[in-house]
Amino acid sequence: MDDDTGTLPPKQDFSGWFNDILWRAEIMDVRYPVKGLYVWYPYGFAIRKFVYNRLRELLDRDHEETLFPLLIPEQEFMKEAEHIKGFENEVYWVTHGGTTPLDVKLALRPTSETAIYPMYALWLRSHADLPMKYYQIVNTFRYETKQTRPLIRLREITSFMESHTVHATWDEAEAQCEYELGLTKEFYDGLCIPITISKRPDWDKFPGADYTIAVDAIMPNGRTLQIGTVHHLGTHFSKTFSINYEDKNGEQQLANQTCYGISERSIAALISLHGDDKGLILPPAVAPVQAVIVPITIGKRHEDVLAAAKKLESDLKAAGFRVKMDTRDMRPGAKYYWWELRGVPLRLELGPRDIDGGKVMAVKRTGEKSSLELATVCDGVTRVLAEITEGIRAKAEEHTKSHLCSVDSMDALNTALNDGNVAVVHWCRERECGDAIEEKANSSILGTEVRSPYVAATDGKCIVCGKPGKATLVGRTY
Amino acid sequence: MDDDTGTLPPKQDFSGWFNDILWRAEIMDVRYPVKGLYVWYPYGFAIRKFVYNRLRELLDRDHEETLFPLLIPEQEFMKEAEHIKGFENEVYWVTHGGTTPLDVKLALRPTSETAIYPMYALWLRSHADLPMKYYQIVNTFRYETKQTRPLIRLREITSFMESHTVHATWDEAEAQCEYELGLTKEFYDGLCIPITISKRPDWDKFPGADYTIAVDAIMPNGRTLQIGTVHHLGTHFSKTFSINYEDKNGEQQLANQTCYGISERSIAALISLHGDDKGLILPPAVAPVQAVIVPITIGKRHEDVLAAAKKLESDLKAAGFRVKMDTRDMRPGAKYYWWELRGVPLRLELGPRDIDGGKVMAVKRTGEKSSLELATVCDGVTRVLAEITEGIRAKAEEHTKSHLCSVDSMDALNTALNDGNVAVVHWCRERECGDAIEEKANSSILGTEVRSPYVAATDGKCIVCGKPGKATLVGRTY
Repeated sequence: MDDDTGTLPPKQDFSGWFNDILWRAEIMDVRYPVKGLYVWYPYGFAIRKFVYNRLRELLDRDHEETLFPLLIPEQEFMKEAEHIKGFENEVYWVTHGGTTPLDVKLALRPTSETAIYPMYALWLRSHADLPMKYYQIVNTFRYETKQTRPLIRLREITSFMESHTVHATWDEAEAQCEYELGLTKEFYDGLCIPITISKRPDWDKFPGADYTIAVDAIMPNGRTLQIGTVHHLGTHFSKTFSINYEDKNGEQQLANQTCYGISERSIAALISLHGDDKGLILPPAVAPVQAVIVPITIGKRHEDVLAAAKKLESDLKAAGFRVKMDTRDMRPGAKYYWWELRGVPLRLELGPRDIDGGKVMAVKRTGEKSSLELATVCDGVTRVLAEITEGIRAKAEEHTKSHLCSVDSMDALNTALNDGNVAVVHWCRERECGDAIEEKANSSILGTEVRSPYVAATDGKCIVCGKPGKATLVGRTY
Repeated sequence: MDDDTGTLPPKQDFSGWFNDILWRAEIMDVRYPVKGLYVWYPYGFAIRKFVYNRLRELLDRDHEETLFPLLIPEQEFMKEAEHIKGFENEVYWVTHGGTTPLDVKLALRPTSETAIYPMYALWLRSHADLPMKYYQIVNTFRYETKQTRPLIRLREITSFMESHTVHATWDEAEAQCEYELGLTKEFYDGLCIPITISKRPDWDKFPGADYTIAVDAIMPNGRTLQIGTVHHLGTHFSKTFSINYEDKNGEQQLANQTCYGISERSIAALISLHGDDKGLILPPAVAPVQAVIVPITIGKRHEDVLAAAKKLESDLKAAGFRVKMDTRDMRPGAKYYWWELRGVPLRLELGPRDIDGGKVMAVKRTGEKSSLELATVCDGVTRVLAEITEGIRAKAEEHTKSHLCSVDSMDALNTALNDGNVAVVHWCRERECGDAIEEKANSSILGTEVRSPYVAATDGKCIVCGKPGKATLVGRTY
């Protein structure tokens, strides 16, 4: 959709690379005439589709999908005090229908607690209705005053998956939080994205939650990106919205709730973590095109090669692979460049000599070449795609591991952050010490009680006061 | 989610039946506290998912899916004069972000021409970029002042598929309109919904179109429901939004465009046309549950029956059927009632005698029973589901056919409409005669140049003035 003029900035200039890759690989057009709103190109939308299909599959194991309205009447939105405080500066308000002022202002959902919970109050009657586990994937809106960025900080979040569950007891809600963290791990593992899990400090939890567990990824520049959150809501909202049930003894009880969200930041992380100087690198599981076939039809064997390429394409399609054959009138080198930019994991080159030998050349987007037997090509492609996935995962794990840096002094903390790392410290979980850490290092406490295969979860002395503390992540965030 | 209290009104009381079926079959909750906004229950959402998956499959043949922002800045929205006139009374306006008034008011899209076409102006450069064929499935908003109805007349249309194509010439755009009418026919044929196709009168076309072809269904009460429209936009919008391309001679040309829409009214028609006094009847292609297995485990053969039912379930699932086994602690009769209400096409009853005979009883939601061999049950279920589909289709066709009534006088027109029919008249296509028809019969001219297997498309004399006229549909619409 745009001319391929100039070249992609090197990945080391991450901010330039990210801005450029969005249009060069046809993910997103940033020229929409409202700040913070962007357009999904068909190719970007196809990536989104495969990513969200995976998410749906996971959620459908024990949730059901629903859809609630976008517009929330002011009186419902304003019911839960903490929640309002958290969102009141960020809410878009609809005030007019046509030229008529509305009797009741309508909020565009920034998140849907206040749209969903009045209905849950109607739906929940008895303990037999519990647990209730529903989710929706919707557009939500935040009037961001900070700098907006495509996929990362948006005014229209186009792809917000929000799950809202209801349980009889606090412990059951806690168990649900853990279950959903498990789903999240599985989801990101499928995208080859290593995550850290930690409990946000109290002052940074979701407005109206008992606690918030956050899932972060470490971006190429060492900044962290929050790519998922699970909130234990306790009875905050059930009190406000009267979400009660009759227990086995016939008594009314307040329900316990959780909510849980994942947005298109998942795709920001996907793109950013795996790409390289040549462009995107997509894990096969979510690549719209898993393999591109490039027939090398120079000379007079043109028809032979084309016929063999077509057979290869139909064999692979029949086996369920997402394959494209590129027969455009372009030099092979230009085609390679084009598909590499778009992150297609595997290129299959087929020329006269390959056919004669009953082979096809398989070139991984991640580097190596190998020759596959045409007779068993589906098995070969399965194997090579699995190797590509492992290669992508290993590289992302290496990156994450090398950017998690354990430190035990404030000076070392500063150095670690200035070197583009995320620091692991011990912290006593007192606000005063937390403030000291954040101010001194111009950073944020991401969370404590860290769970990551790369971080020792042992207790230690608080980096500020020396009292007993828990392993805690400190980083510079998006 | 609600107690099954009372009973469903008979289908003959269509309005009462429709209102009741929505909550009884758990399609939609109408209790959301804003007029014209409704909540999709999980079961309704699952029906929607299968219906829209079909629509996507059809569109993906030659369109690509995209996603554009919901919010349209006032200056873009106000560019095309006819278009504004058509929508200005129906547009919701966002005027505030937090407590801050916005510099530029933002419209919630009532439809996306003015969001998409400024981008098309950027995307289109040369004839080589043509045709462009994109679609999106999104929520759109209309501040309806008429009475709102779930799935039919909404303030948030949650499921608007809108396609927007760009072509070099007017004729190519016209060919695209025909292609999309073909897709629409195939889509509704898959839902067993008979449609009529006709050209809307000039005063009723889409604001900014050269012409509008509409697709209507005849509802149980004889009213027509518009369930699709295809618009030839000519160069109206390309002029306004500067959507130009360089032709082969290096000259700038205005592009020709089409747009095309289908909404959740498709689901209103699906539910309404096929249901009966017992509840929904879903065509197998879009039924979330295609077959329910009810083990009849009375007496001591309990374990045997359950084991056989489990095997049956896993055999059918392995063959790709959407199957549920109902082992709830309820009387079989109560289960039958429950699944019939939800429109599950096939019930498989399995008791001790069935197992002994190597059989299972297949009860169609549409009426007949037959015994299937367990050894070849997948073939049997395939056959029975196909019969159910044919039965549903035949009934809907019979309904449609019997409600299309050819008349050749104004008195006969009135009678036909008062009897709950859609009338076929001849009309000269002059406004004056059109007004006479609409006023006299308190009805609408749906469209002319009718295409329907049940209507003779022959020309005839205008029912008002006697001049040559085309076959024209007149009805009372939703």
